[in-house]
Amino acid sequence: MTDVKYVYDFSEGNAKMKSLLGGKGANLAEMMSIGVPVPDGFTVTTEACVNTMKNNGEWPTELWGQIEKGLDDLESRTGRKLGGGDKPLLVSVRSGSVFSMPGMMDTILNLGISDDAAAALAAETGNERFAWDSYRRFIQMYAEVVEGAPAHVFEDELAQLKARKGVKLDSDLSVDDLKELVATFKKVAKEATGKELPSDPREQLKRASNAVFASWSNPRAKIYRELNNISDDLGTAVNIQQMVFGNRGDQSATGVAFTRDPATGENIEYGEFLVNAQGEDVVAGIRTPNHLSELKDVLPVAYKELRETMDRLENHYGDVQDVEFTIEDGHLYMLQTRSGKRTAAAALKIARDFVEEGKISKEEALNRIEPDQLDQLLHPALDTKHLPTPLTKGLNASPGAAVGRIVFDADTAALRGKNGENVVLVRWETTPDDIHGVIAAQGVLTAHGGMTSHAAVVARGMGKPCVSGAGEIHIDTDAKTVTVNGKVLTEADTITLDGSTGNVYEGALPLIPPQITDDFREVLGWADNVRKLGVRANADNGPDAEKARELGAEGIGLTRTEHMFMAGDRLPVVQQMILASDDAARAAALAKLLPMQQGDFEEIFTAMDGLPVTIRLIDPPLHEFLPSLVEQSVLVQKLEDTGAPAAELNEAKELLGHVKRLSEQNPMLGTRGVRLLMLYPEIAEMQVRAIARAAKAVKARGTDPKPEIMIPLVAYAVELDTQRELAEKVWAEEAPGVEATIGTMIELPRAALTADQVAKYADFFSFGTNDLTQTTVGISRDDAEASFLSAYQDMGVVPANPFASIDADGVAQLVEMGVQKGRSTKPNLKCGVCGEHGGDPASINIFNKIGLNYVSCSPYRVPIARLAAARAVLGSERGDK
Amino acid sequence: MTDVKYVYDFSEGNAKMKSLLGGKGANLAEMMSIGVPVPDGFTVTTEACVNTMKNNGEWPTELWGQIEKGLDDLESRTGRKLGGGDKPLLVSVRSGSVFSMPGMMDTILNLGISDDAAAALAAETGNERFAWDSYRRFIQMYAEVVEGAPAHVFEDELAQLKARKGVKLDSDLSVDDLKELVATFKKVAKEATGKELPSDPREQLKRASNAVFASWSNPRAKIYRELNNISDDLGTAVNIQQMVFGNRGDQSATGVAFTRDPATGENIEYGEFLVNAQGEDVVAGIRTPNHLSELKDVLPVAYKELRETMDRLENHYGDVQDVEFTIEDGHLYMLQTRSGKRTAAAALKIARDFVEEGKISKEEALNRIEPDQLDQLLHPALDTKHLPTPLTKGLNASPGAAVGRIVFDADTAALRGKNGENVVLVRWETTPDDIHGVIAAQGVLTAHGGMTSHAAVVARGMGKPCVSGAGEIHIDTDAKTVTVNGKVLTEADTITLDGSTGNVYEGALPLIPPQITDDFREVLGWADNVRKLGVRANADNGPDAEKARELGAEGIGLTRTEHMFMAGDRLPVVQQMILASDDAARAAALAKLLPMQQGDFEEIFTAMDGLPVTIRLIDPPLHEFLPSLVEQSVLVQKLEDTGAPAAELNEAKELLGHVKRLSEQNPMLGTRGVRLLMLYPEIAEMQVRAIARAAKAVKARGTDPKPEIMIPLVAYAVELDTQRELAEKVWAEEAPGVEATIGTMIELPRAALTADQVAKYADFFSFGTNDLTQTTVGISRDDAEASFLSAYQDMGVVPANPFASIDADGVAQLVEMGVQKGRSTKPNLKCGVCGEHGGDPASINIFNKIGLNYVSCSPYRVPIARLAAARAVLGSERGDK
Repeated sequence: MTDVKYVYDFSEGNAKMKSLLGGKGANLAEMMSIGVPVPDGFTVTTEACVNTMKNNGEWPTELWGQIEKGLDDLESRTGRKLGGGDKPLLVSVRSGSVFSMPGMMDTILNLGISDDAAAALAAETGNERFAWDSYRRFIQMYAEVVEGAPAHVFEDELAQLKARKGVKLDSDLSVDDLKELVATFKKVAKEATGKELPSDPREQLKRASNAVFASWSNPRAKIYRELNNISDDLGTAVNIQQMVFGNRGDQSATGVAFTRDPATGENIEYGEFLVNAQGEDVVAGIRTPNHLSELKDVLPVAYKELRETMDRLENHYGDVQDVEFTIEDGHLYMLQTRSGKRTAAAALKIARDFVEEGKISKEEALNRIEPDQLDQLLHPALDTKHLPTPLTKGLNASPGAAVGRIVFDADTAALRGKNGENVVLVRWETTPDDIHGVIAAQGVLTAHGGMTSHAAVVARGMGKPCVSGAGEIHIDTDAKTVTVNGKVLTEADTITLDGSTGNVYEGALPLIPPQITDDFREVLGWADNVRKLGVRANADNGPDAEKARELGAEGIGLTRTEHMFMAGDRLPVVQQMILASDDAARAAALAKLLPMQQGDFEEIFTAMDGLPVTIRLIDPPLHEFLPSLVEQSVLVQKLEDTGAPAAELNEAKELLGHVKRLSEQNPMLGTRGVRLLMLYPEIAEMQVRAIARAAKAVKARGTDPKPEIMIPLVAYAVELDTQRELAEKVWAEEAPGVEATIGTMIELPRAALTADQVAKYADFFSFGTNDLTQTTVGISRDDAEASFLSAYQDMGVVPANPFASIDADGVAQLVEMGVQKGRSTKPNLKCGVCGEHGGDPASINIFNKIGLNYVSCSPYRVPIARLAAARAVLGSERGDK
Repeated sequence: MTDVKYVYDFSEGNAKMKSLLGGKGANLAEMMSIGVPVPDGFTVTTEACVNTMKNNGEWPTELWGQIEKGLDDLESRTGRKLGGGDKPLLVSVRSGSVFSMPGMMDTILNLGISDDAAAALAAETGNERFAWDSYRRFIQMYAEVVEGAPAHVFEDELAQLKARKGVKLDSDLSVDDLKELVATFKKVAKEATGKELPSDPREQLKRASNAVFASWSNPRAKIYRELNNISDDLGTAVNIQQMVFGNRGDQSATGVAFTRDPATGENIEYGEFLVNAQGEDVVAGIRTPNHLSELKDVLPVAYKELRETMDRLENHYGDVQDVEFTIEDGHLYMLQTRSGKRTAAAALKIARDFVEEGKISKEEALNRIEPDQLDQLLHPALDTKHLPTPLTKGLNASPGAAVGRIVFDADTAALRGKNGENVVLVRWETTPDDIHGVIAAQGVLTAHGGMTSHAAVVARGMGKPCVSGAGEIHIDTDAKTVTVNGKVLTEADTITLDGSTGNVYEGALPLIPPQITDDFREVLGWADNVRKLGVRANADNGPDAEKARELGAEGIGLTRTEHMFMAGDRLPVVQQMILASDDAARAAALAKLLPMQQGDFEEIFTAMDGLPVTIRLIDPPLHEFLPSLVEQSVLVQKLEDTGAPAAELNEAKELLGHVKRLSEQNPMLGTRGVRLLMLYPEIAEMQVRAIARAAKAVKARGTDPKPEIMIPLVAYAVELDTQRELAEKVWAEEAPGVEATIGTMIELPRAALTADQVAKYADFFSFGTNDLTQTTVGISRDDAEASFLSAYQDMGVVPANPFASIDADGVAQLVEMGVQKGRSTKPNLKCGVCGEHGGDPASINIFNKIGLNYVSCSPYRVPIARLAAARAVLGSERGDK
């Protein structure tokens, strides 16, 4: 039997041992090793917690023995005894996980105190009040945290006592009051838990440690981890540390501080403290803490030492520190140091300042900035300091904030939007018909649909805020009302959406505009020098392409040509094409579409002068351009029931026939992409002709077009072979002097599995990881995100939404296989990604490892991808640390 | 430059060179080598044809030179000269591909004849009539086949001449008549083709050879290959052979014969001949041929030699031979020998007889029987000899023939079926609600749906004929009429379905019952001794399981528990469960279902006493048990429009709400299988409990149950882990003394890609290749088979329907990966297949190579799978030859 070492004295650890000792324990050890004053103690490892969880809550056999040994050593080093003798040892028992989870898990202070110990402490310190104050705090904390007593029973007693004594603050209570409170607390604790609290302090320590382990799995910790993508498997360490007392009198204090302003990054004094208090008082907000600068006047020596220590820690760690400290009788003790959480703006300023100050390298600076955080700076955002209670909450489908009057249909949105009014489009869900309304609106709110519903995708593509799947709202389109939890809003009402959180607020909340600062440009420039992955954008029109280029895109990785079909003036022509009864009618409709598409492509080529533009030929099934089967069936029924004129009824029935013919049970797996082009080669021909003519036209105007024609949904190499032949023929007719390449999306498992065959006919591969995820995992995005997928995230079946962050074990394996097989045929095959994952840092890290040439994402995620790609090279991704 | 050898004298070849020389050329060479009399000649290889096709019809440079060399050698061996001199050489130019394609490609006889040659031939033979008869035949054949003249122009002239001369048969024409006909044919040939026929016989030979190459790609040959799964890439050889003449007089004849009866397998005389005729006369049916036995009297010497030669060939090849022969002036010549095509019944009898006669081994005998052919014997079939023109044609969804009166709804079918009437259910498509109607009907005809539509799957599972997707039929359910190409049929009319071809006939056609003969049992027994793959059946109830066992199944590989939910008395309870407003209501519904399911399982366990039964927990999404969204939406609209009572309307609206909540855009990728079980563990619990109670109950009755619990649609190992834990808990409560195993279906790419993880929690894997194909290739079965997939087969994009025969490059790669990864975790992991592919010989061959433990298929395909599995071991699959 191997004896695992579960307990480390602070003197045995260092900052690198975070995963074993947790952040707090590792940093306490590190501080001790560099001579910063920290109270002595030891750490029970995360491994102990993990093994306990694995063993259904039962401790490893050797664990308690090792903790007792740690305690024995601590007693002998401090010359004190836990809970006993003239000089009792009191300890804190605190959690500390690998990733900071502030306030999520449990803490017990003052453990070791008892009637005897309180008396001894009073005698030793000459401060009877402090001793009994510490005692009553312990009883409450222990009973609540370890034995599960409800908080209110203690709060009630305290409130009653204060009322009886006519005092307002806890600190106004006398020693006798506190003694009475201790007695009362013992009584209510026994009543609440049905038993005496254990009197043996070692037994208390055991139970307290176990409670910290258990707190790893409490609901709020779980939710926090889910929000922050922290694995449930890591477990927490437990730090057992000699108490120092900020509540020992006027020469004592406790506080928290940052080495720089975490909101702005400025190098100014930032922190708070309370004299004669314990740590929890600062956080609890019962007394208003003082600004750190005032400490200079109150405790000048300790203040000076604190400032020096903070500078030292910032230099030592090379990063802004968030510290907790206690001053006991004039002596400074540091209880914690960790990297300070900061806003995106602060992160950029701090990175730039640290590099200029010579504290860290540019690479190290890039390591410090979470790419996702940049999102804050790229959309108008709510001022998060003063938010009211939201009306309801949906999915945070497209980030940023939107304020506007409610409108219930796209036409109204377009009309009122054109008149300069700010409107928010509120729909059960959006369809291609609503596109003009979405364009005109500030944001979109839908009752149905997931993170990748039509509304969400379109909104993100436009950088427009969207809250989707807000299931609590009920829309009455006829009455033009939306009901939320009993509240009825009309088109006269204004709402505010926060697309970054999914919250919906009543009224107009103030917004903060996007901030593209010098810091931003500077730091992203460093990233560009480091990264290997190219970064392109997905854009379907000229303005989006321009925006993408402004944000640093090196090309367009995906232009969806069908979005161009959905504009109001084009949809009827597209429908003519679909409903054409013969080849001639179809050809006539296509002839009308050709110049429209050509114009679109000219705009994009012009915006991207000299940079590659990947244009995907039409992808969705044709029925997406027609009314839905349900809608049209109901209409026919209604016309029948109401005795509508025969002509009208027949027309509706005929359309229903077309809809039925084209409807599919699983459109995701249906007649779309290259399948459509194989059945209707005339569509492919028209699109390639439009691209060729556009390229030729802009070239004649001095622009350098770099078109890349992309065939979607290829499963069989021969599909690409056929389409390539057709495209080459058309190109040779239209634009023989202009270079163009032809490639395919790899978005079906079969295409990846047979990529060596497909590569024969491809100049490039673009992995469509959205669809590849749908087919590989067998999940329909829209259906799943609204149903089992969110449950799966709650249950921990999936570590993250696989449509947001690529499934590393499954889908990424296919991407890698596709790249390897493709390059086995063509060693220099250009490979990119154009799914939603192209803008996700964790996914970008994987794509960098696989050796893709570029990622492509929505324009507003381009800076995020640039930074993430650099961090991938630097190995900064969390899993790589 | 390498000189490819494109031409082989018959003396250079042998029977093993089929792929290069084609079947006919290889067998002519083989016969020559064993001393069977064959007219001399040479073969132009299939490679010459393939290279010509690749080169857009242009011949390889060296080809013509090699043919001329072959001809020179033939001239010198025969002492004759093509088309010239006193002894002109006449040749036949005939196609011959690797796989026999009788009558599909072109033939030219008598090439080399001309005015001079005809005269020389007449002089040489003393038979002027024969010479001019051969000449007129040549002109017609050459002009039609090589120069593209229409056949009718010659037929018309011949008919007019006969009318003018007042004769009935060609053979009644005089020599002068034939001379006149030659002149007329030359004239009409020139008129029809716009030019003189080439006079140089070598030029004729060149063009004739090229015409044979081209005939490889004629439409009927293409269709034949598609029907018989023969690759378009193989090409045909060309055999150039000295003519021998069955039309040289009364001592001449021509005929075809089989060495045994190809319909029954009996060892009797079987063949036909015509005196004084050329080969095409026998086939054309203008004169009625004589039975082979009569030849004994007409040409006794030649007859004796023919019978001896046939015996010799049968022994030499070890198989029944189909021969063509010509007797010229009393001398026998064999023109062709090949394995004779035979019925399934004949194939079995012949195999058994040959083994008993010691001619071949059992293994060799198994090689001779195409597994798919056995299907003929397993369903009542139409008598294919006398079929009328079909009314229409759909997909051959479930084999066998059905005769019955038309019914348009399931209730009527059930009612009339119970009364002993034979009915055929005719529906736009079937739903689970129709199950009782399907059970009561002889067969099912649907206007919509593919090979795996509900109707098709259910029908195949029951061994019931089904024609699906018959797009030409139009059903008026209200009027109870079905209109097909203008013909209106009612419930008073009877139709006949041929599920083996997809044809639908008016009226009642006579049927042949299934034939499970001694031969069948004997031969299948040999297969069982050879094969390595186990063969199980898919069965959902006791009778099906019994049938499966009778047909040789070694277990049940798939019991679909949801089919049990669809029975009329259960569906309402299932709906109660789905619509339950709280846990208690759901629990109550589940409690009602439990004993029903238990009863189902007891039946199956009893039928399969001692053999494993794999039971899949519920798989389909819940909305499949409710009305469709369209249906219910239309109903609500109708109730609203017609002012229905509020209670009725509200109930309909409420149900619509549930349907909307559960409806999915892509149900195939939705909340089904294990996802459902994760969301509603109480369903899994009920099902496992029912299995456990059933196992315990039958065991108490002395039966040996071997349950295998299967969790469907696993994508993540943790899903299986969770379900396994739940199942083990329930099992321990209910049936601790009964053994059961727990495994999963591998039917999503991710499961195969991560099979090493999934295997940790699995006792077995069953590859659900239907769904695996849908997700890997990205094809929705029902949608695709009715739309682009059939077009893809026509275009040659897919070699076969990937739902019928497994996609070797894509899906099979994932199956192999899944097996390897699974066994890397558990070396003895049992792996099977339970998709439609489990009964497909080509797929079985692949599964055998991958090393699966078993395949599972519908009961009626079990014998086919047994044979195919043996042939896989023997390497008999076509691609392996």
